[in-house]
Parts: sequence; structure tokens; C-alpha cells
Amino acid sequence: MFPKNTWYVACTPDEIAEKPLGRKICGESIVFYRGNGGQVAALEDFCPHRGAPLSLGKVVDGKLVCGYHGLEMGCDGKTVAMPGQRVRGFPAIRSFPVVERYGFIWVWPGDPAAADAGKIPHQDWYDHPEWAYGGGLFHINCEYRLMIDNLMDLSHETYVHATSIGQKEIDETPCKTTVDGDTVTTSRFMNNIEAPPFWKLALRGNNLADDVPVDRWQVCRFTPPSHVMIEVGVAHAGKGGYDAPVAHKVYSVVVDFITPESETSHWYFWGMARKFNPGDQALTDTIREGQRKIFTEDLEMLERQQRNLSAWPARDLLKLNIDAGGVQSRKILERLVAEESRPGESKGEASGTRVQA
Amino acid sequence: MFPKNTWYVACTPDEIAEKPLGRKICGESIVFYRGNGGQVAALEDFCPHRGAPLSLGKVVDGKLVCGYHGLEMGCDGKTVAMPGQRVRGFPAIRSFPVVERYGFIWVWPGDPAAADAGKIPHQDWYDHPEWAYGGGLFHINCEYRLMIDNLMDLSHETYVHATSIGQKEIDETPCKTTVDGDTVTTSRFMNNIEAPPFWKLALRGNNLADDVPVDRWQVCRFTPPSHVMIEVGVAHAGKGGYDAPVAHKVYSVVVDFITPESETSHWYFWGMARKFNPGDQALTDTIREGQRKIFTEDLEMLERQQRNLSAWPARDLLKLNIDAGGVQSRKILERLVAEESRPGESKGEASGTRVQA
Amino acid sequence: MFPKNTWYVACTPDEIAEKPLGRKICGESIVFYRGNGGQVAALEDFCPHRGAPLSLGKVVDGKLVCGYHGLEMGCDGKTVAMPGQRVRGFPAIRSFPVVERYGFIWVWPGDPAAADAGKIPHQDWYDHPEWAYGGGLFHINCEYRLMIDNLMDLSHETYVHATSIGQKEIDETPCKTTVDGDTVTTSRFMNNIEAPPFWKLALRGNNLADDVPVDRWQVCRFTPPSHVMIEVGVAHAGKGGYDAPVAHKVYSVVVDFITPESETSHWYFWGMARKFNPGDQALTDTIREGQRKIFTEDLEMLERQQRNLSAWPARDLLKLNIDAGGVQSRKILERLVAEESRPGESKGEASGTRVQA
Repeated sequence: MFPKNTWYVACTPDEIAEKPLGRKICGESIVFYRGNGGQVAALEDFCPHRGAPLSLGKVVDGKLVCGYHGLEMGCDGKTVAMPGQRVRGFPAIRSFPVVERYGFIWVWPGDPAAADAGKIPHQDWYDHPEWAYGGGLFHINCEYRLMIDNLMDLSHETYVHATSIGQKEIDETPCKTTVDGDTVTTSRFMNNIEAPPFWKLALRGNNLADDVPVDRWQVCRFTPPSHVMIEVGVAHAGKGGYDAPVAHKVYSVVVDFITPESETSHWYFWGMARKFNPGDQALTDTIREGQRKIFTEDLEMLERQQRNLSAWPARDLLKLNIDAGGVQSRKILERLVAEESRPGESKGEASGTRVQA
Repeated sequence: MFPKNTWYVACTPDEIAEKPLGRKICGESIVFYRGNGGQVAALEDFCPHRGAPLSLGKVVDGKLVCGYHGLEMGCDGKTVAMPGQRVRGFPAIRSFPVVERYGFIWVWPGDPAAADAGKIPHQDWYDHPEWAYGGGLFHINCEYRLMIDNLMDLSHETYVHATSIGQKEIDETPCKTTVDGDTVTTSRFMNNIEAPPFWKLALRGNNLADDVPVDRWQVCRFTPPSHVMIEVGVAHAGKGGYDAPVAHKVYSVVVDFITPESETSHWYFWGMARKFNPGDQALTDTIREGQRKIFTEDLEMLERQQRNLSAWPARDLLKLNIDAGGVQSRKILERLVAEESRPGESKGEASGTRVQA
Repeated sequence: MFPKNTWYVACTPDEIAEKPLGRKICGESIVFYRGNGGQVAALEDFCPHRGAPLSLGKVVDGKLVCGYHGLEMGCDGKTVAMPGQRVRGFPAIRSFPVVERYGFIWVWPGDPAAADAGKIPHQDWYDHPEWAYGGGLFHINCEYRLMIDNLMDLSHETYVHATSIGQKEIDETPCKTTVDGDTVTTSRFMNNIEAPPFWKLALRGNNLADDVPVDRWQVCRFTPPSHVMIEVGVAHAGKGGYDAPVAHKVYSVVVDFITPESETSHWYFWGMARKFNPGDQALTDTIREGQRKIFTEDLEMLERQQRNLSAWPARDLLKLNIDAGGVQSRKILERLVAEESRPGESKGEASGTRVQA
């Protein structure tokens, strides 16, 4: 279950730099590539000639050329040419609205008539002199909502990430969840504690002492369909915490774009945007590798959790107060999916046209 | 098809020495660990909080702590505590009767009310100065009854184990099968033959000549649900064979505990208890490696046999006199399974409590 | 969908030289071996005793001995003997008509009463002083008809085999398809072009200049069930092309025997028979390795095409004029399969006897 009339992150530009990329998103097999003038295009990954995946082809003069028999496909899903053939009667394949923005390729797998590039959420940190960003991509064999649950309940850090960002004060400090429209926020503030290893590294990366007490915050923010932005950081204790002047803190946003592949698998685009020492590329690399190591610790747990839930489909799970962030996020998703299936609503099944972004 | 109101070997103590063990037995996903005071516990491998496998957690002060969010589970399947939560209303998970005995952990996957540790079959050879034991574990992708068939008809040794324990006299010597209650016995006695390589090794291991004729015996004994103990050995010919004085023979018991995992896979705990030269640990190791090599020869045959039987489910197999041991064992299993499914009988579905063993 | 009352290539003699071969053909699990007097036999790969695959056994004195318990199987599917057993009542297993001819083992998976070795198509090139042959075998996870399509439309060479046999003139030159009874022929003749790398190699292998213009031909010939013989070659331009004297050309036949394994997989026996410089074994090896490399380039495309077609089963494909060879071949196959399923027709389900070939 996932909404289809919405924007998902499909890939990063480097993934389509050399050749077309085939990727399944929300159950749709899609080929992504740079077409006319370098603009990104997204089409069904199915050549109308004999069904070969177009992603095995190559791009020539802005047209996607099938790697089997040379059919030239246009960015709108209409065949442009084929050696020795008149192509006017060729059936069009589906194209998907697609936009390149904020360092990602975004795709709209639903009704193209409803696609509005203005609905792609603004990313403050992108291309901004005060910020630096680094990230990566995982393919995970679990439903995307298990990842939302994971990120909206950071009490798991104490157990899954014990040696990097976990600490007992997370468990001991209650969190608070609020819902404002389609935004769900779960916050936790821990004062006068010792920074865990990852945050000591970040303090040093900002030329701050790492051996003094700190105030630590975690503000997880879900917006549909599956974006979770987490304000995280520590400040030297007593300097104002979350609101401390920049000279006394390290402040970052964990950037999570979670894209369903199928009902039991997803693409996880993770990263960290930091608002300190942005010019230090080595620090960016260090933080990315630290984050990769930390997020790798979640993989086995999430995939094994999925296998358990698939094996026991009828069993109810608990919804404790620490789970409120995930529970509220799921309610919003259920409402959005129900709206898409209502008569008169678009169901994301119509044949597509490419949005101008 | 397998009885559930019975004891199966689940694992060996070394498998739970460092961390909890997740293992599926008779279709049940179970976590095994040492709980209060080192006593073994067995629970559903499913955290009632969010469905994570408890086997990914760790044991702290006799409680199993979930590795995802720190739920503390008691050995009875009732949640003991969880950071920041009141746990009284948490649903219990199923616990399984479990007993440590004879160097194995035994589990009762059925109705716990019927579990009686006294029904675990006594093992003469365990912790006895006249005996030595060595063994191992295989996971095999075939139904457990194919392994029972295999062990109750040793005529396969001539073909599968031609270079170690097989010899033409096995084929040439008729076997005899008897049924006594729920015990099936298939015996074969071969006199005045040359010992095959494995038994020459055993003779040398007992400081006996290996170049003289021997009398050889094989007495396979099935008891439900799937234990097959095989008395095996050779004596110098004419000294009494099976009944020869210990100075003239090498006498062992092949110990086979066969535990269903699913309808088409099982765990095979194999070993050999020998009643000669018990203090020679190097001999124990040599025999274990020889046995491992021999039993490995069965794996491809059994798994390919399973694939054939799955592909031809309607085809009848032959039941020759050499198959009588397996045929009679299966009749007992069919009766036991039928008894479990009768109205008024326990079906192994009730929620469990831990047996005191 | 595939005809069963027909001859398929099952294997090559080297595959049964050392031990029996188990291979699934048209959904039938079959064991091939050399029985009485070295003559090839083909039986169901299922021991009537306990269902073990007979292909795990060995051949002793022309009888296939089961590797599990020693049942001796005759080439007609009737048990010959078993240690300690009277075998008269043993059920026979199915035998398949099988013939060794032209360097291959041919099997008839359908009604044995209809099997006629005279229907195996004659291979001119076999054991002939003017010809040399080299080939190989691939297992491919796609329906066998996708391979027929592939070989009956060589326009894919321009895209899939761009660096060896592809060239733009293939696309630019129309092909012509004709149907004569059950034979479908698609031809293309390209005159006064540069030879692509593979054909330059062949010219040099026949001591001909490779830096002069050539005439090139491709004549693809389908006959049921799935044989595609392709006359290929180049002649120095203006010497008569396809009909040029042997001193001015290199002439070969691509030999393709395509054997269904299941509805979505097949065995592909590929090779090249050349009618020039036949005594040069090093040239045979060089050509075989070149062909293996070229045909390997098709594998990913074909298997990914199958996955696409399986995912979109309702989608119609285009049937362009370049596809006419495959389209006409499929029509013949559909007629043959329909004939087999008609009441009164043999359906390839009867129990078999071995044909005398």
C-alpha cells in the first residue's frame, strides 16, 4: 500500500550519467535517462517492438535507442523512428512525470494530469553556502512503512546503534508526538548528557570540545508520502540547546527519502545535511561513512522484521507512545491511499505525459 | 506431516552459548536461550512490540532483551519491562516446553499441558565412563521421513558409501524387521567377512587387528517421533559376533535425532557413541570426521529425491522387504498424527508454559 | 507451448561419456546414458523403488544402476534386477525414443509410437571432408520461441553484436521472408560493403584479403520444431556473392538446435559449420570462441525480455516486416501444437518404447 499520486525520489543524477537506469518504483518498471537537452525522462521499461527492457539500450541524440533492434524512443513514449520501418502506428508506452531537483530525480508514478512540480518539498539545505550534504542509497527488502516507523521512533538507537549514536538517556527521556495537517513530528530533548561517539566526532569536526556535557535533540518530521527529515544535534550544555548560537553547537538534518519498490521492498535514500563547517569535504566524507555504517546496522533487523510480519500476517502489533510517530504517519498514508481509490479520483493508472518542470 | 506433541532435539548447548538462537522447528519459529539461572528457555521468535525476531537480541540478567527497542521478555513469554512503558497489558507470546538433557536441548512444539520431561528417551551412553560421543548437525532440504527411511534401510551403504562402510555382503544378507509397540527394529548380521575401511579404522582405534575376518552387525531401532539408534560394530570372526566379549569387538551406536523444520526440510543431529577406547579424544575426532564425510554423501541423494517426489506427488513408491523399517516407522507416525488431529485431542496449538525439567 | 511429437537435440555425446546425464526437456525429467552395446537410452529420471534420480547412478554392463539402493534398470524402463528382490512386479518407468546422429543425441518427448528416426533432419555438413564444425551449449532462462525470433531477425546484430558481426548495412537492407510448407526462410543480401570484424577474421582464415569490399549474405531457415540453420558468409565483391566460386568466399552455416526445457527456459545448442579450410583445427577453435562470445551477448537481452513479457503477459508485441521470420515460424508451431491436442491425435503422454535408430 502506497500512494501513487505523489513525488518519490527515483535516483540520483550520477546513476544516469553513463547509461539509462532501469528501476522499479511503486510496482512500475521504469527507465530513467537524460533525453532532449539533458532533461530527465522516465518511461515504461518495455520496448513496444518486442518487449525488451529499454534500460539495456543507450541514448543517442536525446533519444533512447533500444539495445535489441534499434527502435528510437522519444521522451514522451512515442516511437520516433526504427530502421526500415514506418512508426506512425506504433503504440505509445507510458511516460512518467519526472523532475530533477535538489540533487535528486523525482518521479510521479500516478495520474500524470495531477502531477505538479510545485508539490516537491523544498529542501533548505540544497545548494546553500551554510550547508553541506552527503548521502547514499540502500535497497532494503522490507515494506517502506517499516522504515518510516524506524525513523520516527529513535529509541531503537540505544539497541541497534549502541556504539555510535545510542545512549541510555534516549530510552529514559520521553518523546512527544504532534500532528499538524499532514506533518507528524516526534521530538526528544536530552540535557546535560555525555555526547555519544558520533556526536563527539561531529563536535571535533566543528572545532568544539567533545569532553564536556551537552544538550542533545532529535526532531523527526514525517511528510507524505515517505519523507522523514530529522533535526539532530548537540550543543555544549547550558548554551541554549536546540536554540544555542551556532558557535556552541553542531546542527544537522538527517535526510530520508523512502521510495517503495514493491509491497515488501523499498529504495532508501539516506543522507545528512549539516549546518556547520560546510567547506570541509573530508568531514563530509567522514560523516557519510559513519552514517552508512550506522544505517547498515538497521538492515538485518528491518528485513527480518518483514519476514516475521509476512509469516504472521494476522498478528496485531503494539502501538506504544514511542510508536506514535509511525502510527500517525501510517494514518495519513491510509487516508491518502483511500482517497486515490475513491470513484472519481484518479488512480494513477492513466497513460502519462511528461511534466514540464 | 509430523507429530507435535513430542520431544524433538532443537539444538546443542554450544549453539546458545554466546547469543540466542533462532531456529524453525515443526513450522514454528522459536528462539532458544539461557534464561534465569542458565536454564534453557524457548519462545516464539517474535517480539510482541513490533514483530522483530527476538533471536537478534541478547540476554541480560536472564531476560531476553529485544535488539530493536529493548523490550525485556521473560522466560514465560510475558513481557517483564520496557523502557518508559507500563507492560501489564502487553500480550504474552507463546513459550515452548524445553529441557536440557543428554547433551541436547529438547523442545516440545505441541500442547504444553501434555509435555512430560520423563518421556525424553534415556541415552545410556551419555556421561558414562565406558562411552565416548562425537557428533554434528546438518540442515537438509528434504522431508524428515526420507531420512528415517534412509537410516532404517542400510542397503544404501553399498551404493552411497561404497568406499567407507559399504560392501556387497550388505546387499547379499537379508535383513529382518520387527515391530514391538512403537519401536521398529531392522537387523542384519554378516559373518566372516572383510571389514570395510571405516571399520578397519575402528578396529585399529581399539588396538585390534584389521586384517582378519570379522562378523558385522547393524541393528536399526526407530522410536517416535524420529529417533533412530543404530547398533553397529564388528568382532573378530567366531568370537560371538554381536555378543562377543569387548576384547574382541568394536561396538558403537549411531545416534540420529531428526527434527522437522518444515514439510520439506529438517535438522539432522547425527553422532556416534562408541563403547571402546573412550578416553581417546583423537579417536573421537577421527571417527566424527569420518562420519561427517560419510553422511555428507547422503545429502545430494536425499535432496534430489525430495525434488523428484515433489515433482511427481501422485506416484506410488515400492515397499520392498528392505523398506520394511521405514514403512513400519511411517505407519506409527501416521497413527500419532491422526491421534493429534482427533476432536478432543490436543493439537499442539495452545499457548504454552515452560515445563520444569 | 511446444510440440512433443518431434525430435529435439537432447545433449552431445561427451555429456554422457563419463556418467549418466539428467536433463529436463519439454518438462520431462530424463536420464540419458549409454546402455547395451553403447547405444543411447533415455528414461524418466525417477527410480521406481524410492524416487531417487537415476542420473545419480552409474552404468554397469549396459544397465543403469540406481545410486541409492542398487536397482538395475533396463533401457526399456523395466527393472532388470535388484539385490535380494524379485522384480517381476516392479512398475516400468517411461522410456523415450532416442537416437544418436550427426554428433548429437536426439530425443522424442511425445508419443513413442509416432517416433520415426527418418524424420531427423539430415545435416549435410556432418562427417564430410569439405566441412568443419564447432559448437557449444547454453542454458537460457527464456522461452525457446524468443530464441527463434532472435535468430530469424538478424537486424539485432547491429545493436547486440555491434563490435563483431553487426553493421549499419544490415538495418539498411530489407530482408525477405518466404514460407514453403513448414520451412520459413528470411534472406538479406548486402553488396559492396566492408566486412565486419568476425568476417575479416574468417577471410584471413581462408587466406583471402580482408581489406577489400565484400558481398555479404544471411539466409535464415526455420524448420519445426526449433531448428534454425543460417547460411552466412562473404565473398569478395563482384565475384558472384552467395554464388561466388569457393576460391573467393567464406561460406558457413550457423547451426542452431533450440530445445525447450520448460515454458520459460531452454537449452541452446549453437555451432558453426564452415565450408572452407576444414582441416584447420585452430581455426575451428578460434571461430567457436568468437561465436561463443557473440552469442553470450544475447543472453542478458533474452532473459530480461522474458522477465518483461512475464510481467506484462497481456501486452501485444509488434509484428514488423523484420519480424516476419519469427511470426511465420510461430504460426507453424501453433498449428503443430493444436494438432497434437486434437482428439484422436497422440498427445505424447503414452508410455514409451525405445526406437531402433
